[in-house]
Amino acid sequence: MSGRTTRRRVLRISLPGDSGARADLLATEEPLGIRIGGQAVTLTMRTPGDDIDLAAGFLVSEGIVRSAQDIAQIKICSADDCGHAGHDGGGNIADISLRPDLAFSPALRRNFLTTSACGVCGKASIHDLSVLPDFDLSQDRLQVTAALLADLPDRLRDAQRVFASTGGLHAAGLFGADGELLAAREDVGRHNAVDKVVGWALREGRLPLKGCVLLVSGRASFELVQKAVMAGIPVLAAVSAPSSLAAELAAEAGLTLVGFLRGSSMNVYAGEQRIAAALPEPDIPVR
Amino acid sequence: MSGRTTRRRVLRISLPGDSGARADLLATEEPLGIRIGGQAVTLTMRTPGDDIDLAAGFLVSEGIVRSAQDIAQIKICSADDCGHAGHDGGGNIADISLRPDLAFSPALRRNFLTTSACGVCGKASIHDLSVLPDFDLSQDRLQVTAALLADLPDRLRDAQRVFASTGGLHAAGLFGADGELLAAREDVGRHNAVDKVVGWALREGRLPLKGCVLLVSGRASFELVQKAVMAGIPVLAAVSAPSSLAAELAAEAGLTLVGFLRGSSMNVYAGEQRIAAALPEPDIPVR
Repeated sequence: MSGRTTRRRVLRISLPGDSGARADLLATEEPLGIRIGGQAVTLTMRTPGDDIDLAAGFLVSEGIVRSAQDIAQIKICSADDCGHAGHDGGGNIADISLRPDLAFSPALRRNFLTTSACGVCGKASIHDLSVLPDFDLSQDRLQVTAALLADLPDRLRDAQRVFASTGGLHAAGLFGADGELLAAREDVGRHNAVDKVVGWALREGRLPLKGCVLLVSGRASFELVQKAVMAGIPVLAAVSAPSSLAAELAAEAGLTLVGFLRGSSMNVYAGEQRIAAALPEPDIPVR
Repeated sequence: MSGRTTRRRVLRISLPGDSGARADLLATEEPLGIRIGGQAVTLTMRTPGDDIDLAAGFLVSEGIVRSAQDIAQIKICSADDCGHAGHDGGGNIADISLRPDLAFSPALRRNFLTTSACGVCGKASIHDLSVLPDFDLSQDRLQVTAALLADLPDRLRDAQRVFASTGGLHAAGLFGADGELLAAREDVGRHNAVDKVVGWALREGRLPLKGCVLLVSGRASFELVQKAVMAGIPVLAAVSAPSSLAAELAAEAGLTLVGFLRGSSMNVYAGEQRIAAALPEPDIPVR
């Protein structure tokens, strides 16, 4: 496994006529193979670090496990069958052993992640998810103020150490109802950043994540809504735009979806009942 | 198939106390199933539009076809076996027929895209690609000036109609050596935007894309470098950061990789011999 950043020589050009070589830090991107019971089930391009959390979060997102007790062991290891001469095979395999009585057959689960949308008619629905959470997200009575949400992007940015040096990472931050940052993770893939946060929560015994807010640094896709739903997170906020399918699934699943959370404004695409004081306060005339 | 944008009611909140419902346009995200010879091979979450190009570009990126003659037909159709009551099954399947003598077995090709990196040791190499292009990219003698590159983001932005209304789309633009915009495509997925451009080029008989520059609106990942290499594009430029693996693969494949292309500056991560006038002009003293 390499570090989260990789140093590389780069030619920096500033027009009209300035250029020169310098060292630049890039966000490291490497594949992580995920094996369950010795069988390869998927491979994700990720930034090394928090790989056990990433693997654990993947298991939650896919509905394979629901608590830390479902996992016997996650081992980050190198493979002995690499076969690439000169390649250092250290630490790019997450080898998962489930609780012995937990049935899981990779052969029966060839479709992961976004393939759980209906690939035929193009509509997605909570009922189309290949697995369903065992709780009703719409029952989460969390209330957050718009002012609290507006503060979160700055708090997440403060925690984004690698982005600050490379400009190349997505971040996901999990916050409590009072705005306290519980966990922040970074990755070249936005889905991996969320899986890392969810995996951390699983290992801390905090699932489902009732009363929490998940903030992502970029856009909100269908896939991220799926992950929030599976982890039981009632509020997903994104700094950028959501997609149409993200908003549709959020509304159907009872998830509050906030987008364009920037400065002092935001758009609420679903579940606005959780945003307290969303309505203007009455004008009190000064006299 | 739906439109590229979807109208949705949203609650707009502007602190300290202003809020109200309004209509918002979201980038449409829907799955597109890709079938070859009647067999489902993959499903991608994409923005509807240019679906034939998307399917064609996928075939190029995966090394399944090398020219338009390799494709007998691509039909965008609805499925008759949807089974979701109330779902409109229109146009979310790309049904591909290859040239009859072209061997392709989906069963033998279960690994697509990023899985062609070495999943064991975490290093990627041009030799690890599951398919190789049949040309040597390093032989492309294209020369572009830094000034020409610096102009491209504005030209791409001008062509990004949907992003302007939703803020939710990645763009890919293909330019000739003189900076002329040949094709621009938008999608919720950056890889889809590139596949759409490459598929357009395939159908226009322009592959391999010698002497061209591909610009992407976001970051440059390993996957995008792979796609540029397979399409024979000698210069890939990104508005944001590349990943470590993107820079490594570009250097090995003979691709010029430019990142942080913003305003009048840029970083060249690989293949700097194609950037003309990269060195400062000599100072001529004024007297």
